[in-house]
Amino acid sequence: MSAELDLVPAALTQAIDELPLVDHHVHGATSHDLSRTAFEELITESDRPVPEWTTQFDSQVGFAVLRHCAPVLGLEPFCTPEEYLARRARLGAGEVNRRLLGASGIRHFLVETGYRGDELLGPSGMAEASGAPADEVVRLEQVAERVASLGCAADAFADRFGRALDERARTARGLKSVAAYRCGLDFDPAPPSPAEVTLAAGRWLDSGGGRLSDPVLVRHLIWAGLERGLPLQFHIGYGDPDVDLRRADPLLLRGLIELAEPTGVPLVLLHCYPYQRHAGFLAQAYPNVFFDVGLGVSYTGARSAALVAESLEVAPFAKILFSSDAFGPAELHHLGALLWRRAMARVLGGFVADGEWSLAQALRVAGMVGAGNARRVYGLGSGG
Amino acid sequence: MSAELDLVPAALTQAIDELPLVDHHVHGATSHDLSRTAFEELITESDRPVPEWTTQFDSQVGFAVLRHCAPVLGLEPFCTPEEYLARRARLGAGEVNRRLLGASGIRHFLVETGYRGDELLGPSGMAEASGAPADEVVRLEQVAERVASLGCAADAFADRFGRALDERARTARGLKSVAAYRCGLDFDPAPPSPAEVTLAAGRWLDSGGGRLSDPVLVRHLIWAGLERGLPLQFHIGYGDPDVDLRRADPLLLRGLIELAEPTGVPLVLLHCYPYQRHAGFLAQAYPNVFFDVGLGVSYTGARSAALVAESLEVAPFAKILFSSDAFGPAELHHLGALLWRRAMARVLGGFVADGEWSLAQALRVAGMVGAGNARRVYGLGSGG
Amino acid sequence: MSAELDLVPAALTQAIDELPLVDHHVHGATSHDLSRTAFEELITESDRPVPEWTTQFDSQVGFAVLRHCAPVLGLEPFCTPEEYLARRARLGAGEVNRRLLGASGIRHFLVETGYRGDELLGPSGMAEASGAPADEVVRLEQVAERVASLGCAADAFADRFGRALDERARTARGLKSVAAYRCGLDFDPAPPSPAEVTLAAGRWLDSGGGRLSDPVLVRHLIWAGLERGLPLQFHIGYGDPDVDLRRADPLLLRGLIELAEPTGVPLVLLHCYPYQRHAGFLAQAYPNVFFDVGLGVSYTGARSAALVAESLEVAPFAKILFSSDAFGPAELHHLGALLWRRAMARVLGGFVADGEWSLAQALRVAGMVGAGNARRVYGLGSGG
Repeated sequence: MSAELDLVPAALTQAIDELPLVDHHVHGATSHDLSRTAFEELITESDRPVPEWTTQFDSQVGFAVLRHCAPVLGLEPFCTPEEYLARRARLGAGEVNRRLLGASGIRHFLVETGYRGDELLGPSGMAEASGAPADEVVRLEQVAERVASLGCAADAFADRFGRALDERARTARGLKSVAAYRCGLDFDPAPPSPAEVTLAAGRWLDSGGGRLSDPVLVRHLIWAGLERGLPLQFHIGYGDPDVDLRRADPLLLRGLIELAEPTGVPLVLLHCYPYQRHAGFLAQAYPNVFFDVGLGVSYTGARSAALVAESLEVAPFAKILFSSDAFGPAELHHLGALLWRRAMARVLGGFVADGEWSLAQALRVAGMVGAGNARRVYGLGSGG
Repeated sequence: MSAELDLVPAALTQAIDELPLVDHHVHGATSHDLSRTAFEELITESDRPVPEWTTQFDSQVGFAVLRHCAPVLGLEPFCTPEEYLARRARLGAGEVNRRLLGASGIRHFLVETGYRGDELLGPSGMAEASGAPADEVVRLEQVAERVASLGCAADAFADRFGRALDERARTARGLKSVAAYRCGLDFDPAPPSPAEVTLAAGRWLDSGGGRLSDPVLVRHLIWAGLERGLPLQFHIGYGDPDVDLRRADPLLLRGLIELAEPTGVPLVLLHCYPYQRHAGFLAQAYPNVFFDVGLGVSYTGARSAALVAESLEVAPFAKILFSSDAFGPAELHHLGALLWRRAMARVLGGFVADGEWSLAQALRVAGMVGAGNARRVYGLGSGG
Repeated sequence: MSAELDLVPAALTQAIDELPLVDHHVHGATSHDLSRTAFEELITESDRPVPEWTTQFDSQVGFAVLRHCAPVLGLEPFCTPEEYLARRARLGAGEVNRRLLGASGIRHFLVETGYRGDELLGPSGMAEASGAPADEVVRLEQVAERVASLGCAADAFADRFGRALDERARTARGLKSVAAYRCGLDFDPAPPSPAEVTLAAGRWLDSGGGRLSDPVLVRHLIWAGLERGLPLQFHIGYGDPDVDLRRADPLLLRGLIELAEPTGVPLVLLHCYPYQRHAGFLAQAYPNVFFDVGLGVSYTGARSAALVAESLEVAPFAKILFSSDAFGPAELHHLGALLWRRAMARVLGGFVADGEWSLAQALRVAGMVGAGNARRVYGLGSGG
């Protein structure tokens, strides 16, 4: 389409377009229709109302919706927000989801269910809407908060949480910690003692439970998660204003990474923007560290190739994964996949055009990052 | 000119070249002739003498002067520093200022007057030399230091400062804090109590006043500024060696941003290099945060498109502003505008050439960042 | 070769290809043959065994070996790792070193001898294998650890270390501190008192000496180094897992830089990835700061132009140096030079193609960074 893209070997672009992706970290699509306000509030990580002097369509992700999702709904690229939302409403959420998820080419979803899961399609709903298998990733904090909400004595918490986690982990493909949101990543990496856990649980439960943010409990959840042996995902970097971005730098996890190394559990750093180079360093240094640049790819839109390129610097290629981290509108699932494919074609195609990589190398790395690495890390089999 | 530029739609380049810019943060141009030493010391943020084994012309900004300012003075691009400075001297500061400011296409200046203002043109001088309106941005610390210099008792300081600020704010378009230079941005974000202010003022005044760097007083100035309702600018990131760059990371302002949010006052983060991605995150997360990449654009010269591109990632387009942050030689005012135009044409033109944006979108965003956003934030009217 | 490279003036590419480089920070090449395991463990900064599910050839540096070193050994580009290692074994380490070092075009090596030096060629071995002069850079910590290993009383340590350092400094071209590895760069920058040094030396020597990591002793070594007047190198940023990357940010050296400024000793920040923009800021702000982006250039392979480009933003051109920081396989020496040349040709050629720089400027800056700056800083004469 452009002179730049003309440099990308057509075989590479086509192969990447057709890759059956594994989205190793995603949330459900919204199952109901969305007002303009609701839609705009879901295409930003801000949780504040949209100011009256602007629209969230005036952003990279907004422009990407009008450019890339409009055709999937039967509109011309670069239509207006009004045209887009009118067509979306006419088609209805079910049809919109089927079209956008289906056209994403994602062939396996690992759905994190622990955040506002009641508003979204669960794994089975995602499988139905997309025609692709969908498994679950369990959020540790949500399991603990549910234990608390059912009533629990402080000295029974660790055991009750452990049993609840065993139950959930039976069918889950992975676990996840949102320590970055709850206490920042600069926590003491060592596992807390049982007595510390009971004490902290007492404080938390006595104050009514709810949002779990005590660092002792957050650490306990992480270490309990590590014992289950499933890959453990960590929110890193970019997210909503609830995150203090300074305390979401993956380099802060160094102590935990080293302590957890003997367990052999893969630690998967999610998103990472703008710390993707830090994540790449950790992925080279430590065999148990993996990462993706999901979320950031969708939200940087026309700039996502820069982000993807920075993820392909010092990290070994077997350590990089694809995710969309989409949440809510199926536009985000679609863009997560589509923009990643375009970015990979540009970046790897650039390496080939520059004479640095062979076409065969580019094809192989695209397949590793898009699906193969996740299949190996999460034990998903060979696909198909 | 180059194959890359050939990809940029000519209509976009021309439209961006002709944009009547609002420079929302700038200092005055030097009104007097400059020796070679003085000139070289003003085209670096270093405050050290130029080492004998180099020249400040051997830098991105130095090369940009010889490339882009030389023709405005009637010389060939890429002349020698000697030829450039000889022509500059022959023309005289007045003519140099008229040419460089006029050709910048800046059509409204917001002049920060609080730093070495006696050596520079003030707002009226800038208006005269450029033919464009010029308003004032008042530096909070300078107002306080003047109150101290006139003699003031500790328990009268808050009131005397408040009245002086009211007087200055009557005609100003915005206020500015240089907390980053004075105590770092890792200060306690809460407003200090009146008793704390009096105590801190006593310590400061007893030691002779002068440079205000006590964090309690810095915070008092910021909160007094917020009460005035004018947009409040913050020095962020790159500057002279007086700044500890680690303590000038905009993420350190998170607490203040959240506390100030109910005031509705726009907080405008200046420069931000190399933290432009951090600033973009804050601009997405918080409705009251705006930012620019001024100063860095001039000083990175041929690399300024990279900086501008990084500012166009996660920030909503209504939150990004243009500034030159020029100080002293009118070359810096000229380059701030010219390099921003070239960078925007390359970056937005690249988005269009890649098929990610429409030409109309690119034109609209250029106008927002170059002028429209600043007109709205500072209440400048529609221009013209 | 590619459309992008077609934009680079051929004269520039050729001139950069032929530049006689000064590698101001490098380790020796391995003098013995390497098994596949040993080779793979030397083309990563990780010190962990290679996981059975991957190979270190699946990385930027691995791809660069197959692309760029294979032809030097008489193979086609993009051969397999097996083909590469078989040819390497057949040729033998001596011939491999002669070919790869010779073809690097490095014409002066400053060899840091303090890390696993017994496994590697020393300066004379490097000179012999490459046909280029090789001088020594002395690692301060290694000198101190040797003093301890020979037996030393606490109150004699400072004097014994001082004399050992004098002896080594007689022929060295520079000194180096690995404070980043030993205690992090967030140490108190002031020189410790003699009493503090004796106390710390006592603690260290009483516990058997060995790895020196006490911050008091690290600081003493640095200040003793500064007294010798030789350029003082600092490990910064990227390295093996022994480094806490957060505590290897060059901005942490601000206090030391300012205290050391009156000595006039050049402080040379090595590697710096991913903090090259921070290093560039320090190089602009402080006359005594220099830096390079070695190590990162080799390890980012096809992406190294991005790194080189970021080093050419705010730093004055007289403050940027070339290094390979190669260690072990001569492939790393070869790639350090070759990828730097390709990156410089792309980046500077892009500036020329964009109309921002003249060809003459690009040629001059390439010569400064590749050799001239190091010749001036280390007093190497005019070369040739």
